[in-house]
Amino acid sequence: MKNKLTLLGSLFLMSMSLQAQTDDGIIRLSEFAYPVKRQNLNIPDVNGFKVLKCDFHMHTVFTDGHVWPNVRVQEAWREGLDAISYTEHMEYNPHSADVKVDHNRSHDLAVELAKENNIVLVKGTEVTRQTPPGHFNALFIQDANVLVADNNSNLDQEAIDKAYAQKAFIFWNHPGWKATAIPGSYEWIDFVEKMYQEKKLHGIEVVNGLGFHKKALDWALDRNLTIIGNTDIHNLIAHDYNIEAPGVHRTMTLVMAKDRSASGIREALEAGRTVAWSSNYLFGKEENVRNLVNASISVSPSYHEKTNSKTKVSTKYYEITNNSDLYFELEIKEGKGTKRIVLYPESTQILTAEAGQSKLSYEIVSTYIRSDKHLLFDINLK
Amino acid sequence: MKNKLTLLGSLFLMSMSLQAQTDDGIIRLSEFAYPVKRQNLNIPDVNGFKVLKCDFHMHTVFTDGHVWPNVRVQEAWREGLDAISYTEHMEYNPHSADVKVDHNRSHDLAVELAKENNIVLVKGTEVTRQTPPGHFNALFIQDANVLVADNNSNLDQEAIDKAYAQKAFIFWNHPGWKATAIPGSYEWIDFVEKMYQEKKLHGIEVVNGLGFHKKALDWALDRNLTIIGNTDIHNLIAHDYNIEAPGVHRTMTLVMAKDRSASGIREALEAGRTVAWSSNYLFGKEENVRNLVNASISVSPSYHEKTNSKTKVSTKYYEITNNSDLYFELEIKEGKGTKRIVLYPESTQILTAEAGQSKLSYEIVSTYIRSDKHLLFDINLK
Amino acid sequence: MKNKLTLLGSLFLMSMSLQAQTDDGIIRLSEFAYPVKRQNLNIPDVNGFKVLKCDFHMHTVFTDGHVWPNVRVQEAWREGLDAISYTEHMEYNPHSADVKVDHNRSHDLAVELAKENNIVLVKGTEVTRQTPPGHFNALFIQDANVLVADNNSNLDQEAIDKAYAQKAFIFWNHPGWKATAIPGSYEWIDFVEKMYQEKKLHGIEVVNGLGFHKKALDWALDRNLTIIGNTDIHNLIAHDYNIEAPGVHRTMTLVMAKDRSASGIREALEAGRTVAWSSNYLFGKEENVRNLVNASISVSPSYHEKTNSKTKVSTKYYEITNNSDLYFELEIKEGKGTKRIVLYPESTQILTAEAGQSKLSYEIVSTYIRSDKHLLFDINLK
Amino acid sequence: MKNKLTLLGSLFLMSMSLQAQTDDGIIRLSEFAYPVKRQNLNIPDVNGFKVLKCDFHMHTVFTDGHVWPNVRVQEAWREGLDAISYTEHMEYNPHSADVKVDHNRSHDLAVELAKENNIVLVKGTEVTRQTPPGHFNALFIQDANVLVADNNSNLDQEAIDKAYAQKAFIFWNHPGWKATAIPGSYEWIDFVEKMYQEKKLHGIEVVNGLGFHKKALDWALDRNLTIIGNTDIHNLIAHDYNIEAPGVHRTMTLVMAKDRSASGIREALEAGRTVAWSSNYLFGKEENVRNLVNASISVSPSYHEKTNSKTKVSTKYYEITNNSDLYFELEIKEGKGTKRIVLYPESTQILTAEAGQSKLSYEIVSTYIRSDKHLLFDINLK
Repeated sequence: MKNKLTLLGSLFLMSMSLQAQTDDGIIRLSEFAYPVKRQNLNIPDVNGFKVLKCDFHMHTVFTDGHVWPNVRVQEAWREGLDAISYTEHMEYNPHSADVKVDHNRSHDLAVELAKENNIVLVKGTEVTRQTPPGHFNALFIQDANVLVADNNSNLDQEAIDKAYAQKAFIFWNHPGWKATAIPGSYEWIDFVEKMYQEKKLHGIEVVNGLGFHKKALDWALDRNLTIIGNTDIHNLIAHDYNIEAPGVHRTMTLVMAKDRSASGIREALEAGRTVAWSSNYLFGKEENVRNLVNASISVSPSYHEKTNSKTKVSTKYYEITNNSDLYFELEIKEGKGTKRIVLYPESTQILTAEAGQSKLSYEIVSTYIRSDKHLLFDINLK
Repeated sequence: MKNKLTLLGSLFLMSMSLQAQTDDGIIRLSEFAYPVKRQNLNIPDVNGFKVLKCDFHMHTVFTDGHVWPNVRVQEAWREGLDAISYTEHMEYNPHSADVKVDHNRSHDLAVELAKENNIVLVKGTEVTRQTPPGHFNALFIQDANVLVADNNSNLDQEAIDKAYAQKAFIFWNHPGWKATAIPGSYEWIDFVEKMYQEKKLHGIEVVNGLGFHKKALDWALDRNLTIIGNTDIHNLIAHDYNIEAPGVHRTMTLVMAKDRSASGIREALEAGRTVAWSSNYLFGKEENVRNLVNASISVSPSYHEKTNSKTKVSTKYYEITNNSDLYFELEIKEGKGTKRIVLYPESTQILTAEAGQSKLSYEIVSTYIRSDKHLLFDINLK
Repeated sequence: MKNKLTLLGSLFLMSMSLQAQTDDGIIRLSEFAYPVKRQNLNIPDVNGFKVLKCDFHMHTVFTDGHVWPNVRVQEAWREGLDAISYTEHMEYNPHSADVKVDHNRSHDLAVELAKENNIVLVKGTEVTRQTPPGHFNALFIQDANVLVADNNSNLDQEAIDKAYAQKAFIFWNHPGWKATAIPGSYEWIDFVEKMYQEKKLHGIEVVNGLGFHKKALDWALDRNLTIIGNTDIHNLIAHDYNIEAPGVHRTMTLVMAKDRSASGIREALEAGRTVAWSSNYLFGKEENVRNLVNASISVSPSYHEKTNSKTKVSTKYYEITNNSDLYFELEIKEGKGTKRIVLYPESTQILTAEAGQSKLSYEIVSTYIRSDKHLLFDINLK
Repeated sequence: MKNKLTLLGSLFLMSMSLQAQTDDGIIRLSEFAYPVKRQNLNIPDVNGFKVLKCDFHMHTVFTDGHVWPNVRVQEAWREGLDAISYTEHMEYNPHSADVKVDHNRSHDLAVELAKENNIVLVKGTEVTRQTPPGHFNALFIQDANVLVADNNSNLDQEAIDKAYAQKAFIFWNHPGWKATAIPGSYEWIDFVEKMYQEKKLHGIEVVNGLGFHKKALDWALDRNLTIIGNTDIHNLIAHDYNIEAPGVHRTMTLVMAKDRSASGIREALEAGRTVAWSSNYLFGKEENVRNLVNASISVSPSYHEKTNSKTKVSTKYYEITNNSDLYFELEIKEGKGTKRIVLYPESTQILTAEAGQSKLSYEIVSTYIRSDKHLLFDINLK
């Protein structure tokens, strides 16, 4: 332990030299400053598509959020997001005594900053009337202000129709939001069915914040609607997510797009090439989740073999690597091999398998391809 | 390494069970949520005074800040602060196209939330005219709106006088702010001297954010003005400070007060019982810094002695403990003992001293009791 | 976001100045060094007793551990422990081809280092024969080597008797260790009953590493045996515990002792004044757990009251503070107040209660005062 | 702040459900366990070569280290290393009273574990006689025991010759080790010159632990010797490096090899394709450092342009991305653009440049291609 008494260096210990002396009589005490950077969120391309990290649901002081619009760009830039959308409430403006109501304003105020930070800004709004039917987000609109419905008897329908007239991509937000407060609200009601029939409903927000709406996933799968995950953030991301902890990220939609642009995102949304990512879980159509998994996980050829001297059973060793910042948990279903594998972001585990097998079959229990179904993942052993 | 392959438990690994299943068809994926708590910031009482953690300089969307007023209470609560003050600019309102100008509004909007969170709210404002003379904060005012000066030739003086008429505690903000941009601005100018002579200047903000204004410290010491440290935060604390890292805190004024109340704070400010704390450094009058150090650091009696078989020199062992969340760095000046000691928050180091001495003298290089002077700290050896 | 482009300071950014230039042609690149310190583990005194943090079960290369004895002192010092005990296996020496077998050696090699670091070293050993009866630790012995039993038919009994003859404090380790592998091994067998009757069994290791042995807790409670929790560490603490994460600590026994000494520890062990602490949980006799909780948690008088304008119900606000580095989770049992409270180390939560009540009753679900019973905790409202 | 009172989820808060209940009467309290994983250390291939992370200098209990050999494989696996070498001292065996002296033993004990963990084990030893000449590591040897020199008058030469006879790759360790204690020891002495002339010296350890030996770098560059960086670890990596902090890694040699094998490493070492990496710094031949930088840093085409309305100056925006886990600091030398850029691991910064330029020239001040020279790095603007 001699080192203990003599070791000089440490972050704190060297702090005197951290003062950036300048010639203006001010000393910058800089070591406490946040390391300002855009953290790459690594996910390999999927079959030639870029995997864009998108959050299509958020609020600012212009409705009931707690931040000025610029903060949302800062957060997106720092956290490695590619695209965001301001979706202020159309009909709920609790700050109106202080803040002038203008449904386009948060987007407009952020346009230049988003450009400087290379963040794709998708113009959007949230149509929020009674629940049911609840709330809908309309993306790729031109003007949010004209969407406000007249005060007549058919508010919801009118707002949806106006958004549709603007060629919006429309999805249903957090379908189970008031599931317990308003019995019957978490149902596939006529209003929604009509939208769906008229091609005015294009996706469902299956994950809102940290809430996974199970029935909503199945509705989306059964009707081939696009699966969406968003934060619906009102507060700071840093106050709602433990964002500095390793592996922690906000809820988002992974969009597999031809290019990193608003039009690329729109094409992918319409084609349904999305996976929602929240906490350690992925939610999506089987094909999309499978493609994402295949792009992220690799298994090495066997690099070692060992025979148990008593049982004469031979065990082969493999490396299974997560090449992405995603997270995977696997549980074996068939074959004799490692029973449970946890693949942290950008990490590797050792996989062992009894020699003589050509395949192991796992369930990736950190994925949902239906509310009660995980992705099956076969590993071919070499 | 057998353990590696068999060990089951880990934060991530158990995450499936982290899902809080509920009966409403929504699964809460909770492990990514921020641990919402008020983190105690431990500093022992100093000679019977409570050490209150205060930030008297901050902004919201009501002037040029990026957050709604409630966020400042959230931040203060989480970070263990006792008191804050909204100090919106009187004359600078870049959001006025969107946000109605009302200089009392951010304070008023936060009053109830502050009460619920037991945060002391000190009503304040920032008088911001030309530089020089620069900016001044006025605390304990009644009405910020009436402070706005008429558009005449003596703007600064009028605003200061109106604040003084409201019995404000007034301090000069970041005196070196435009030191390089406006030559001569970082001087003790006539305007300030007049305020001082008329007892209208009560303190100086020696540390603003992570900038330590060296000359300002000496001005305060020479004139017995109260030493203040503030964030002057416009953005999120979490975006400007690496707040989740161990030992990191925002800049603040430590106020040694008779009780935890607005009046207790005022009495202490007027009596000058403050120390500014920024990064790893403490700035203040020698007496205040010394009292704070004495309350925070303790040295044990010797618990071990060892004699070098060759040199016959005996070494005694002591524990030196930092009982606070502050940080101290000591360098020896006199005596034969450990040359350099770093006392991280709530931690202990071993101190060794040649036997036969009654005292070691250290300089605490992480303190400033003048722009060029650290506190001397004697350790009596037992 | 202007700040992003201009902000200079950050830990990494300043790193050039972190180089401690010296005159010997070697530059120390110090910022990556570990902050070497003893982290205080704060637990307030309990009814005048000091709460000592002790780990009475660990191994080194002298049996089947992976470290030289000095590492165990380093770990204890860094982690804020007060006392440790080397408890090498008497009969299991897998390194004997390389390391000379001497059951006292790891202790002896650490004695001087422990003194320098002010760590109390309790001389111990682990008697490890067949399971059942399993393993027993003997503390406060004089000579481990003489405890090795002759190769006769009554190995276990002889070793226990020899330890008893040395006036050892003896406890049963991890009683459920081979619960599934050897049916019947996790039972209160005759061998143990005989020890107990003859006063040769004084405690039970209720928690071993991260395994809580439920039946063992009840056995200890029913027979008034001392409750022990240990790591039984073989590997590095840093490889088995996520020791750098906030709030993480190794498993240990909290010993409420008259003073910080071997004799103080012995007296407390014999008096049964212990609580085992592992993960977020406390395990112990109700009285001990209650005293520890009372010393750690404080509730403020009400500081705010608010009346709901619709329901006319008044709510009072209180602060509930955890003044220790322990962790508590409370669930309400009686009264109208906050249903669930999580008290992280050194933190505070807001507690609300309907006005007009004098008391709220909580269950502290992070404590076990029996395998199926948590501590009840009443809060008197002021 | 409503969320604060109602938000349920958090790592700690959900901890009750973290208990993995089993049917054997033992509850596993698993959330404190270390997330056991191999952390990928991402560095893109360099001109078709794999960048292997190697540490060729370390000790165990078999000489003066503090750990059993298996711990070094654990550490290497967890930290993403590809190859290690046990280099026990030939002539310094302070544990010999307890541990049988065998210079091959630590390597041999680790062979099977290294195979299972896919860690390349390079057989080595450290020839440690007087200083000067100091210490030398010999890699790729067959038998360390036969290297021990007879007790004659020419110890150093004999040991070196024997290692050379085993076709070892030999490098000089920490040349400035006793620079101040033994004046003249940090010189290019005759003994070393003779080794060099006889082709018995192949590399120099320019960085040892966190010490950068400036003169040694220049010696290696001037004589085309291979540049090496190692930990020379005796204690735990986790006690000497703040290994859990983001961006922290042990000191190592980056070997650009044709394949991940002992022979691949040897070929690269002989060809001099190495860069030493310690703290935030890279040390190596200009060509090697340049290739590594080019593989790691990418600059996007301009994605935005903005014209200052007053000055009419146009500014173009670019993204500069660090695609590796390395760290880079750039300072501008020529051109009008961002003056200082810090590229944290796997992160991106915005680079701005005045329009109309084709190039910016930076110095990468976190690299050393000579003791007084950083790499120059040109950015071609598109």
